[in-house]
Formats: sequence, structure tokens, C-alpha cells
Amino acid sequence: MTLDLDAEVARLREQVATLHGELVRYNLVAWTAGNVSARVPGRELMVIKPSGVSYDDLRPDNMIVCDLDGVVVDGDLSPSSDTAAHAYVYRAMPEVGGVVHTHSGYATAWAACGEAIPCNLTAQADEFGGEIPVGPFALIGGDDIGKGIVATLSGHRSPAVLMRNHGVFTIGRDARAAVKAAVMCEDVARTAHLARTLGTPVPMAQADIDSLYDRYQNVYGQSGP
Amino acid sequence: MTLDLDAEVARLREQVATLHGELVRYNLVAWTAGNVSARVPGRELMVIKPSGVSYDDLRPDNMIVCDLDGVVVDGDLSPSSDTAAHAYVYRAMPEVGGVVHTHSGYATAWAACGEAIPCNLTAQADEFGGEIPVGPFALIGGDDIGKGIVATLSGHRSPAVLMRNHGVFTIGRDARAAVKAAVMCEDVARTAHLARTLGTPVPMAQADIDSLYDRYQNVYGQSGP
Amino acid sequence: MTLDLDAEVARLREQVATLHGELVRYNLVAWTAGNVSARVPGRELMVIKPSGVSYDDLRPDNMIVCDLDGVVVDGDLSPSSDTAAHAYVYRAMPEVGGVVHTHSGYATAWAACGEAIPCNLTAQADEFGGEIPVGPFALIGGDDIGKGIVATLSGHRSPAVLMRNHGVFTIGRDARAAVKAAVMCEDVARTAHLARTLGTPVPMAQADIDSLYDRYQNVYGQSGP
Amino acid sequence: MTLDLDAEVARLREQVATLHGELVRYNLVAWTAGNVSARVPGRELMVIKPSGVSYDDLRPDNMIVCDLDGVVVDGDLSPSSDTAAHAYVYRAMPEVGGVVHTHSGYATAWAACGEAIPCNLTAQADEFGGEIPVGPFALIGGDDIGKGIVATLSGHRSPAVLMRNHGVFTIGRDARAAVKAAVMCEDVARTAHLARTLGTPVPMAQADIDSLYDRYQNVYGQSGP
Repeated sequence: MTLDLDAEVARLREQVATLHGELVRYNLVAWTAGNVSARVPGRELMVIKPSGVSYDDLRPDNMIVCDLDGVVVDGDLSPSSDTAAHAYVYRAMPEVGGVVHTHSGYATAWAACGEAIPCNLTAQADEFGGEIPVGPFALIGGDDIGKGIVATLSGHRSPAVLMRNHGVFTIGRDARAAVKAAVMCEDVARTAHLARTLGTPVPMAQADIDSLYDRYQNVYGQSGP
Repeated sequence: MTLDLDAEVARLREQVATLHGELVRYNLVAWTAGNVSARVPGRELMVIKPSGVSYDDLRPDNMIVCDLDGVVVDGDLSPSSDTAAHAYVYRAMPEVGGVVHTHSGYATAWAACGEAIPCNLTAQADEFGGEIPVGPFALIGGDDIGKGIVATLSGHRSPAVLMRNHGVFTIGRDARAAVKAAVMCEDVARTAHLARTLGTPVPMAQADIDSLYDRYQNVYGQSGP
Repeated sequence: MTLDLDAEVARLREQVATLHGELVRYNLVAWTAGNVSARVPGRELMVIKPSGVSYDDLRPDNMIVCDLDGVVVDGDLSPSSDTAAHAYVYRAMPEVGGVVHTHSGYATAWAACGEAIPCNLTAQADEFGGEIPVGPFALIGGDDIGKGIVATLSGHRSPAVLMRNHGVFTIGRDARAAVKAAVMCEDVARTAHLARTLGTPVPMAQADIDSLYDRYQNVYGQSGP
Repeated sequence: MTLDLDAEVARLREQVATLHGELVRYNLVAWTAGNVSARVPGRELMVIKPSGVSYDDLRPDNMIVCDLDGVVVDGDLSPSSDTAAHAYVYRAMPEVGGVVHTHSGYATAWAACGEAIPCNLTAQADEFGGEIPVGPFALIGGDDIGKGIVATLSGHRSPAVLMRNHGVFTIGRDARAAVKAAVMCEDVARTAHLARTLGTPVPMAQADIDSLYDRYQNVYGQSGP
């Protein structure tokens, strides 16, 4: 590797290892069931969690570097069993810089029922631009999960897809954005579940959803340097 | 600024930064979605959270000082995207010294359904004096949210309003009281949700609600210095 | 105070202050809404939480010593607003050495519905010996709450009562036992709620409940020195 | 004991004490209601939690060593009141190296209803190979619980059984695997509960369940040294 690449990979090893702590903090994962990856910008490479390793034991140096076919380039352990899905997304969606997968409980309950989360909350309009869609059932082990994610999210505002009977995949311009989408997906899924079991959620007008989404994507937060 | 004002602003920067930790502790916020502000007593100024900054990174020196039109007076970052709503409340309700906004899940579920929380708990009678009301749906970006809060809470016992399809705003004589109202609003919303999904809550007599509210507002806690 | 009494009160100040941490750990309390007390054995005295003080700020030296009419004997702050209820229990039930009050969410949901928690769990049979009963609605400020607790729990196996529209009071031979009952009451109330919203809980035979209760009260844990 | 046995028992005392922390971390236990044991490989011995001791106070040196009839071989305290059930499992199932018992809330709610958890999630197919079965109601104190566990799990893919009106027992090749099964059982029970209260879970094809189970048992994680 060149020096520049080394520095970039080191930065992403640190970021990916640290971001798994957010999955734990927001209670999105049990045991080892959830993973974060980051694309190495401008390279056919990604940094991803090792398979079956406890979140307590994740450190920059045990993250795995793979190419975008999921072949390990640097790392002593096997990469996440979801590596093929992450890799497929990076190959098919060049604008994506981070991917997250969880089985977070509320979102996965919607996935188990095969129901998209309807948009009845301003927070959902802000972050997801409307409903959070359901993707197909797909077996692990080939490209089926990746294909289902890409087919569902391509051209969709939502950075999150509920894979049927399985769990959540989220994408972002970088790994941190994908983790934020995973956190907000569970938060929205929870509130939507609580509203459904409470009474009858009031629908929002599409024009209001559009207005909120447009504003949040362009105005919220600190403008970049 | 005068020395007195400097000291007062410094005190409020510390208080507002610290109080955000209570939103995290009581699980009222995900990622960066919630904010606290305090009026600078006797001045046309408020101290508020910066926009889109992680709760881990809040410190007294990155809080933002704005005037009551929401214009930044002191601070390097953009203020919370909810600044206009906070500012509107301070302009319209001179007795209010603190404002809090969250999307806490149970309260927001009631807001999504457009249902006021009925008062079936002594804790709700104590703190809210009856039902917790619903405010109108309003888009962010102008004074509509602020107007909705003020229209709903003016002359109402409750320091909390459930803004439809959105979340909770609470007010208090200072920022700590507004945070307490946000914590108790979610606690009451949760218990009321659990009661609704369990069976049929038993109504309380209005005279009992009135008696509890009167006592709690006048007797509870330590008498002032 | 005599030296012996001083030592005993010091021990109970430490114990009562520390046990409030268990209410926080098990998520039984929001803000300042919950309290623990201990009888001073052989004396007409009790140690109780001060009113409206944050759990973070409780220390042995700010606990309040009251007589069994609720009059402060030692302490600079006002005692818990529930002091009269604790005191009434100690006066009426000489075998009780500790009292706990919370608004823990699941148990309070049962209280809001005025429903006793039916005994469908071996853990409930062990600790409560059958259903957890509902006590009357009562206003704070006199002896009505205390009377309701005593009337409901006298001669009942359960150390916990669900006061209607209010919350939970538990008793024990000492403060630690009362705290354990409060923790187990919420745990059982939660599982019973989850079972009710899931399907149809299977009833247990009364003879099995009796057998479990008898064994747990006489065999479980380490035998005393 | 021989030196080798001493070293092995010391290792298991440490492991069993530490693994109880996972029950606390994943919120599977309240107060002292849950326990982990490990078989001493190649010996008629097991290491188990003492009865009624707080999780904060568990240390390697207060774990109890029993023979497989539950008789204490080494330890100053009484062993867990569930020791007979653990011992029965070790006697009847020689491939089992670890046993865990909890009353974790969601799983116990299914147990209270006497309902097996249907397999509508890939995570459940991976870990449990299909539904999580219900075992019989059984009183504590003899071999009835152990017999119920063994009768239900023998020849079943699932390492977890929901004992009716009681709670969960899980088994594994070692104590860590049994703890993982307990964590995943509650996670799956929770998501299945949330799906049931939300809508209608979509069934999975048996062939897909079989495929997922086969892959997870043989491919997931790091291959052994």
C-alpha cells in the first residue's frame, strides 16, 4: 500500500471500530449480530467488522480490509458473514461510502410483518423522506441480499431498507451517516410501533413530507468547512 | 457584555450543556434530536444547543447565545434548528425561563395519533394538572411551531405540549424545570400507553386532580432559601 | 441519642441512601419520584429520603430521621412527601422494617387500570404468593394512603400493593427486602403485561402457587448465621 | 484435587462468575433471579452460582463446585436453588457443557402463554433452527424441571426451552454458548412479540429455515484454532 492509502485505511479502521460502539449504545445489537463497513474512498476496498467477534473486543487493528468482491486483503480474521451484501452495495452504488446492518428489534418487527413504516412523524420525513421500504426475503451466502438492498434503495429517498424476515440495512455517504440512519430507523420504527399499538396515527400530507425532507437535507446541522 | 451579564451567561452555558445529559440519561433523544434552552433573565437573550452536534461533544463553550429573534450573538456554530420555536416562546411568554424539545418515543406516539394524554395517574395530576394537550401540526422554519406551542399552553396548567406528528415541547420557570417536565412527560406517556394496551384505565375525579395539582405545586420539595 | 442509637442510625442512613441506587438501576423511578425508608429497630423512629432531592445527590448525611408521626427528629431538609404513608405503615405493622414507594411503569399501568396482577409465573408465586393486589385510590396529605396500604396488605402474602391510579408500595422485614419486592414487582408486572398483550396466559393451580411460595420463603438463598 | 483439575476448576470459576455479567448487561435478570453453570470437562462436576447472592458480589472464589447430583464439593455457600435442574441436564446430555436459566421478560411472556416462538426471523433460524419450544410446567425441588428440559431439547435443534409459567433454560457446548443462546432467545422473543403486536408476521419456508440453520452452524464466526 502507498503511504496515503495506509493513512486512509488506518483512519477508517479507527472509525469503523468506534462506530460499532454506537450500535451498542443505542441497543441495536445483541451479542455479535450487527456490523458496520466503510468504503476506502477512490479504491476498490472496504473496511468491515470481523465475524463473530464481541463488540468489547473490536479495535482498529482487528478490523478487516476486503476488496469489493469480499476477498480479504488485510486482516487475520474472517470478515463479517454479511460482507458479500456490503460489497455488492459498494459495487452497485458508487455514491455510498458506508453500510450498516442490524437486527434492531422494532425495525425488525416491521420487517417480520413485511410492512413498510408509514411516514407519520416529522423526524421520519426529515431523515427518510417518506416511508421506510421493505426489501425482499433473501438467503445469506450469495448476492441475493445485496441485490435486494440495491433494488429497493436505488432511486428511493430512504437510506434504510427493512429486509423481510431479516433486519435492517442502511447506507450513507460515509460510515457515520449510515450509522445515524440505523439509529434513526430504529427510533422511528419504535415510535411508529408505539403509535400503532396506541391508536390511529394521523397521516401527514405528502407536500409536508416533501417540504420537511428538502429542508432537513439542505439546512440542518453545521455547514461543512 | 457587562461583567454581570458575562457571569450569568457563563452560568447558563454550563447549565444548558449539562442538562442535555439528562435527556440522554432518560432516553429521550436519539443521535442529536432534542435540545434545551434557557432565557438570560432580564435580557432579550437565550442560550441554546448548537445544531447537529453530538451530546457527547456539548460543552459550555460551544453553546450558542442568541437574541429572542434567534439571531446568533455569541457562538461559532449554527444554533439548533428549533431555535425559532424556542425564541417565539420566550417572546410570547415572559414567565418562561427554559424550553425543551424532544421526540421521546412514548409521548411522540401520542402526538402521532393526535391524542391528548388523559389524566389517570396521580403523578400526572401533580406535574401537569390534568391531560397533556395536543398542539397543531406545524412545519419547521418559521413561527408556526412557536405559535402552536404558545396557543396550546397559554392558560393551560400543563408545561408540556404534544405537537401533532412531531414531538414534545416543554416549558418551565428555568431550564431545569423544563427538563423535569420533559422527563415526567415521557414517564407519564409511557405508563399511560402501558395502561391503554393492558386494559381500561380508571378515570380520576376532576376534584382529585385539582387537589393533587394544588398540593404538588405548593408543598412538594424543599422550600426555597 | 445514645451511642448505640447513633451507630444504628448511621448504619441505616448509609443503607437507605445506597438502596435508592437500586431504584435507579432497575429503572423504577424518574427524576425524584420514589423513596425508601427504614425503621430504626426498637425505636419509634425511621430514616427516609428528603423530598425532591435528585438521586445523584443522596448521601447518608442528608437522609432524614423522623419519628413515627412523621415529625423530623434529625435533618436539615424536608422529608419525602410520602413520609406520612411510610409512618402509618410502621405504626400499624410492627413486623415491617422497610417501606418503598415507586411509580414504576408496568406496575403503575396495572394500578391505573385497577387490576390486580394475576399469578401466572413461578417467580410471582415465589415472591408474592399469588396475585399482587390493588389498594384504594387515596389522596396524599393525610393517613388515607397509609390506611389503604395497611388494609390491603394485612394478612396478605404479597409484600406489594398497587395503589389505584398511583403506584406501588412495598414492605419488608428491612429496607433491602422492601427494595427487592419493588424490583420484583416491576419485573413481574412487566412480564405479565407482555404475556397479556401477546396471548392468553395459562393459569397456575393454587396448590402449585402455595407449594412454590412455601418453598421460596423457607429454603431459597443462604441460611442466616 | 489434582493440579490439572485445580487449574480447570479455577478457569471455570472465573468464566462462570464473569458470564453472569452478560445476563446483567443484556437485562435478562432482576435481583438474583438467573444463573449460569459449567460442566468440568471429563469430570462428574459442575461450577454454579451461589443462591441468592447479588450479581455485584459474584467472584471466582464464591462460585460453588458440585457433583452431578448437586452435592456441594467445594464452596462455603449454598448453590443456586436451580442446581438440581442443571445437574439433571449434565447427567442426561453428555454433549452439554454449559446451562443457563433466566426469567428474561419477553421469553417468559411466551412461556406464560404456553406458546412456542414461531420462526419468522433469519436470526432465529440461524441460532435455533426453527421454533423455540415450550416445556412442561414443573415444580422446583426435584428432578421435574430437569426432566422437562431434557425431554423437550433432546433431538431438538433449539438450545433454548421455554418452561411453562416459569422461564428459559438454555444449553451449549460450554457456558459461553449457553449464555449466547439465552441472550439470543430473549432478543428473538422480543422481536417476535413486537411483530405479533404490530401485525401479521410473514411465515418463512421450512427449506429456508433449514438452509440458514445449516450455514450458521457450520460457517459463521472464526474457525477454531
